[in-house]
Amino acid sequence: MKTQILRILRNSPDYVSGQELCEELGVSRTAVWKSMNKLKEEGYEIEAVQNRGYHLISCPDVVTESEIGSRLSTCWAGKTILHFKEIDSTNNQAKREAEKAEHGTLLVADMQNAGKGRRGRSWSSPAGTGIFMSLILKPLLRPAYASMLTLVVALSTARAIEEIVGLEAGIKWPNDLVVNKKKVTGILTELSAEMEQIHYIVIGIGINVNTESLPVDIADTATSLRIESGQKISRAALIACFLKHFEKDYEIFLSSNDLSLLMEEYNQRLVNRGNMVRVLDPEEEYEGRALGINEKGGLLVQRGEQLEIITSGEVSVRGVYGYV
Amino acid sequence: MKTQILRILRNSPDYVSGQELCEELGVSRTAVWKSMNKLKEEGYEIEAVQNRGYHLISCPDVVTESEIGSRLSTCWAGKTILHFKEIDSTNNQAKREAEKAEHGTLLVADMQNAGKGRRGRSWSSPAGTGIFMSLILKPLLRPAYASMLTLVVALSTARAIEEIVGLEAGIKWPNDLVVNKKKVTGILTELSAEMEQIHYIVIGIGINVNTESLPVDIADTATSLRIESGQKISRAALIACFLKHFEKDYEIFLSSNDLSLLMEEYNQRLVNRGNMVRVLDPEEEYEGRALGINEKGGLLVQRGEQLEIITSGEVSVRGVYGYV
Repeated sequence: MKTQILRILRNSPDYVSGQELCEELGVSRTAVWKSMNKLKEEGYEIEAVQNRGYHLISCPDVVTESEIGSRLSTCWAGKTILHFKEIDSTNNQAKREAEKAEHGTLLVADMQNAGKGRRGRSWSSPAGTGIFMSLILKPLLRPAYASMLTLVVALSTARAIEEIVGLEAGIKWPNDLVVNKKKVTGILTELSAEMEQIHYIVIGIGINVNTESLPVDIADTATSLRIESGQKISRAALIACFLKHFEKDYEIFLSSNDLSLLMEEYNQRLVNRGNMVRVLDPEEEYEGRALGINEKGGLLVQRGEQLEIITSGEVSVRGVYGYV
Repeated sequence: MKTQILRILRNSPDYVSGQELCEELGVSRTAVWKSMNKLKEEGYEIEAVQNRGYHLISCPDVVTESEIGSRLSTCWAGKTILHFKEIDSTNNQAKREAEKAEHGTLLVADMQNAGKGRRGRSWSSPAGTGIFMSLILKPLLRPAYASMLTLVVALSTARAIEEIVGLEAGIKWPNDLVVNKKKVTGILTELSAEMEQIHYIVIGIGINVNTESLPVDIADTATSLRIESGQKISRAALIACFLKHFEKDYEIFLSSNDLSLLMEEYNQRLVNRGNMVRVLDPEEEYEGRALGINEKGGLLVQRGEQLEIITSGEVSVRGVYGYV
């Protein structure tokens, strides 16, 4: 009900009368009044003017189910939202919920006390300033396709940052996002599968949003959207915008079962593109020029006369001449 | 302690005195006596002759920790054994235990009330006659390697059946085992992973061992080791023998990180080999002659002039002229 009220208020340029709300929601005046009070308690500034009705003046920067839900325009992405004030890690919780959760379920937390990065690294997750979320997907795909989905998520997140914040978001292959060459987003994909069929994929996305200063040890290589843009950003708006883009990109991905229809837009954002990179193959290290991804998500690297295809997970890619 | 006593009795052709047991185990006579009574309660026939000592006459066909453990000769495979009288499915339980379990942990159940086959099929798991077990592995490998491990398990299981039962075990690619062209073993591999690293693999193995008659609906295509051999088989001996072979095969697999050192022995048992097969590719169906697996576990199929490589999980393979 709070979600519906917020949605109506948000979409109305003018005042909305109590009468209208009652009719649209099929509830009593008292029920509306109670929900309004709850919203005010949560930090919403709602003006109530006699004979005119309610008007939403400002929203708190929260990532509750109703705040995100009232901004959603998707069919399935984020149709179920589970909000946690504090959690070990949204990916861990998502894995606990995954068996019974439906495709597209989103988990989001105000803070993580054991935020995870890739390969067991930790992810700094201070309360209230970042986005810590995980999406549960249940595609009818073979496990080998999962790594491509990670690239789709990176692209959709970049689009959302561009739309909401107005900053250019670059992609560092395979799936880190950078703004002005510094990392703002990390993505951690986890998979549960049989040999021939994915059970579920959990895609965790961490975004440094309103953080005003970063821990010293990562300040050289990481940044936040607020630091780079100078503005405070609605995390819920960014999440809703991501879900909108992801739902679309995911359908495009499924229509070809590969990245052929998305690779051009991915490559436009690829910061490695055209740059020399160092490929850390377990068997040998070498340098080459990154050309872009192919339709399977592999990174094409020109190595002298030879064209190498680096598949996600087989190597790390690092700039030779500083950061790329 | 029961495990150790059983191991000593089993390895002694002659009587073992209570004194010897006490010294070897570092416990009192009373403790030995108590353990002997427990073993008798579990169905072990142990003769006790004054002035000579104890002698193991016969063992019940049980799959308890001590019965399997006392037969083990491995370093890590089955070093921890978890035995369940009844469980939904050993794979499900293994997934619940996997995060905190160590590499090589074996779960084994007397019966499963929700035994699983591949692709969500069920697996008939009547009490006391079959082997229902799951192995937890934590290899430092990328997810793409997991499907090869399934083939290693199939090979090790075939070796164990040959050694313990004396029957020729054929492999139906990728990982079903057949005896006299009927299925005796199914393997279900489940994976939890990041894009670049396996968290754990759970390999479930179901073997029809002492079943005397099979459900009507599968009797044409499935059989049991007892039906085919005419003998009652010790399930614990078969499990211990599998663990012995698997530990060895796994180390061989890791030494090359592929199947190159195991493919010859796999191919010798491959019932599809040299036979026409139907490849059920999602995009097209075609027939060809199966030649054997390559070092990555893919099935090589001669299709006219062309050589196709069928990778695990990408297709199903079925005999054209009846069962192969």
